[in-house]
Amino acid sequence: MEKSIFYHAGCPVCLSAEHDIVNLIGVESVEIVHIGEKRNRIAEAEKAGVKSVPALLTPNGNVLHINYGASMADVKG
Amino acid sequence: MEKSIFYHAGCPVCLSAEHDIVNLIGVESVEIVHIGEKRNRIAEAEKAGVKSVPALLTPNGNVLHINYGASMADVKG
Repeated sequence: MEKSIFYHAGCPVCLSAEHDIVNLIGVESVEIVHIGEKRNRIAEAEKAGVKSVPALLTPNGNVLHINYGASMADVKG
Repeated sequence: MEKSIFYHAGCPVCLSAEHDIVNLIGVESVEIVHIGEKRNRIAEAEKAGVKSVPALLTPNGNVLHINYGASMADVKG
């Protein structure tokens, strides 16, 4: 199965959600991307429809915004 | 493994998220509860920390609010 991508920015809400998502779907099924550090992935995340982090991009292209850590505007600073 | 519980209220956002969650974690790992229909489950959901639906209550007791369909106040009408 194609991997999901979990985008986060290192905030406490993000890390808590990351832990839950990895527990639920398995570490082998998800790529974790810290877009605060890997800023070259921000454009890709926005193009995929990510409005805030943490967010999970599913293999079929849907974006699940999980709880609320930071808006993309905040991430871009 | 203990099951997660996915609370929703039948809204389009809820149904889309339900589809994604079932695909990601497997139908055998999650109980789907339509709290618009099973109104006796509303108190339990609120007690668990559900503020809006759709939301996923994980086996370790965390609540992941996914996208945004309706507030609990809307559900209670």
